[in-house]
Amino acid sequence: MNTAKKGSPLTASAHTYKLAVAPMDLVVTADRLAAQMTSVLRAWGMPDEHVAVTVDKILYADLRGIDSHGCTTLAFYQRLRADGVLNPRAVISVTRRDGATALVDGGSGLGHAPATQAMALAIEMAAAHGIGSVAVCNSGHFGAAGAYASMAAATGLIGLVTTSTPTPTVVPTHGRQAMLGTNPIAFAAPARRHPMFLLDMATSTASFGKVLEQWRKGRAIPDRWMLDQHAAPLTTGHAALSNQRLTPLGGDLDGASYKGYGLAMMVEILSAALAGLAFADPRLGRRPRVGHFLLALDPSRFSAAAAFTDHVDALIDAMHGTDPVEAGRPVLVPGDPERAMLAERAANGIPLTANVVDDLREVARVSGVPFLLDGARS
Amino acid sequence: MNTAKKGSPLTASAHTYKLAVAPMDLVVTADRLAAQMTSVLRAWGMPDEHVAVTVDKILYADLRGIDSHGCTTLAFYQRLRADGVLNPRAVISVTRRDGATALVDGGSGLGHAPATQAMALAIEMAAAHGIGSVAVCNSGHFGAAGAYASMAAATGLIGLVTTSTPTPTVVPTHGRQAMLGTNPIAFAAPARRHPMFLLDMATSTASFGKVLEQWRKGRAIPDRWMLDQHAAPLTTGHAALSNQRLTPLGGDLDGASYKGYGLAMMVEILSAALAGLAFADPRLGRRPRVGHFLLALDPSRFSAAAAFTDHVDALIDAMHGTDPVEAGRPVLVPGDPERAMLAERAANGIPLTANVVDDLREVARVSGVPFLLDGARS
Repeated sequence: MNTAKKGSPLTASAHTYKLAVAPMDLVVTADRLAAQMTSVLRAWGMPDEHVAVTVDKILYADLRGIDSHGCTTLAFYQRLRADGVLNPRAVISVTRRDGATALVDGGSGLGHAPATQAMALAIEMAAAHGIGSVAVCNSGHFGAAGAYASMAAATGLIGLVTTSTPTPTVVPTHGRQAMLGTNPIAFAAPARRHPMFLLDMATSTASFGKVLEQWRKGRAIPDRWMLDQHAAPLTTGHAALSNQRLTPLGGDLDGASYKGYGLAMMVEILSAALAGLAFADPRLGRRPRVGHFLLALDPSRFSAAAAFTDHVDALIDAMHGTDPVEAGRPVLVPGDPERAMLAERAANGIPLTANVVDDLREVARVSGVPFLLDGARS
Repeated sequence: MNTAKKGSPLTASAHTYKLAVAPMDLVVTADRLAAQMTSVLRAWGMPDEHVAVTVDKILYADLRGIDSHGCTTLAFYQRLRADGVLNPRAVISVTRRDGATALVDGGSGLGHAPATQAMALAIEMAAAHGIGSVAVCNSGHFGAAGAYASMAAATGLIGLVTTSTPTPTVVPTHGRQAMLGTNPIAFAAPARRHPMFLLDMATSTASFGKVLEQWRKGRAIPDRWMLDQHAAPLTTGHAALSNQRLTPLGGDLDGASYKGYGLAMMVEILSAALAGLAFADPRLGRRPRVGHFLLALDPSRFSAAAAFTDHVDALIDAMHGTDPVEAGRPVLVPGDPERAMLAERAANGIPLTANVVDDLREVARVSGVPFLLDGARS
């Protein structure tokens, strides 16, 4: 199974980022990218029903421009598999269920399938109790949190999703060391005339994906995104990326970074502690499996469902109607940028950098499956 | 009832802040301050059981240094009463209850009593279903959100509380106008060796209370806290206070203010839309009543309760043990500063500025009750 040799690009630190300036040299259709990912995950021994869900959730990110959580994660997963810390044949089980709560065990595999199952369960419990909440333990990276929160909103419910993250990157206010992950929060609510409200945000100021983007564009990194070991701002790409210290949302003390730090701790408690996962001090070595928290809530239990969606519409209208600072740069609401990108990529395909293509080619090679993306609409 | 004359200090705009530099010239005990507030609220016709709860929740803030939500709010409430938009004799009712959800009607009074009742109900529902969620409609200002989230943690549950706020102060990213309130989030989780984890944060970068504090200390306002009508930073006290435009957490585009803005919208949806309150575009006039959302969740339904509190302890230990940037300025966790202030004020009393004392004296006068704070431990 684990055919990649130690020392190959795919067994290097999971936290290595390739830094070559890469033009977008390949555009693929969602279907072809799905076929490639499907063949790889099948070759890893993942059961077919988990393959379908996993590919769907990864593609969710590729199609919406959340590139750090799209197909680029496959190389990261391959490294985990090679290191023996990811079980693609994981058995997912509901280990407790009582009233409006449940615990799902992810079986030490990827997080997409157990999180999808958990949100489906939360939605089912919300039908009976008005609300359902599910913790997932022994899970792995699950891609974009919004993919799960939006499942609830697609059925007329409010969705709230958090996850802990395996890599310690976020430095607490007043501290020097990266102690927490980027611990995201996703929240979705159905509207009526408008598409759903969908917030999906890391509790850090920026993600590494955004840092890389600045670097690729030849721009300095804004001085409240990253810190050096003395907690001074780091604004150059290579040092920042090797140092891996992100600020919590707020950026610095004046910017109330203790709020972003507090939110990151909240997410850690909801996602990991609630699921029974001990907090692993990152200074003591590799972090263990991650946990997720998924909640679905039925607005029709409080006020009339139609009234709720009307109120969400009115809120969105008011924000869209706010006078903009710059003409032509309107006030958006969470979810707008991703929807615009979805329309663009569904029509014109998904652009991949040369680095990502190289990674996928190597993943296909070590997985023993054909590489399907050569020259795809190039 | 409404004996204050139009044009008196207590009937002026609810958004007027006194700007005189005020030394802390009076220190009162919690008991004496409670007696003063009790006599005022009784004189307003508030039922005794609501008076006790309301005073308790206001004092919660005074004792913890959350001064903007302490006894200083009494003058604000008196102005609302004089304007006829606050009913101190409000009847609170549970209008819907089904499974793990309920809706409470605050009866257009203050928010402290209905929010307390709502959290008690959420805690009760969590015993039956593992989780309970309550929306409160037709409510008013309820002080510090942490006072309600901590009710859950005090009984071994996780508490999550949000509220909408009556005054539009927060400017959406890319916008010029204040469209949302400071819409806070409070989250509490029980620990074992440590006191509870307690996050209580506005989703704006700073509150007006903090702006005032900077002004009193003769400092410039940090340039990512407030905006002028062109969305340029405002850093001088008078202009900033009369302008009333706060940035969302993140501060500016580089700082990812769209995340704080997104959180403020999330809070608006959970607190107001869910409770059946229409969003009132602030450009169209005064905002209507506010709503709250209160959730209690039983960790023992997921993993063993003792394991959960141990995990929270370990997380707090790890944060406290993070190497600090400055020796002597350790990494704190949410709740630490308020607990330190509680110890200090419980022992030594609550300091009040001359402005606050003047306000309370005037509130006592128009309410027709004796002023009890003259010379209190001065």
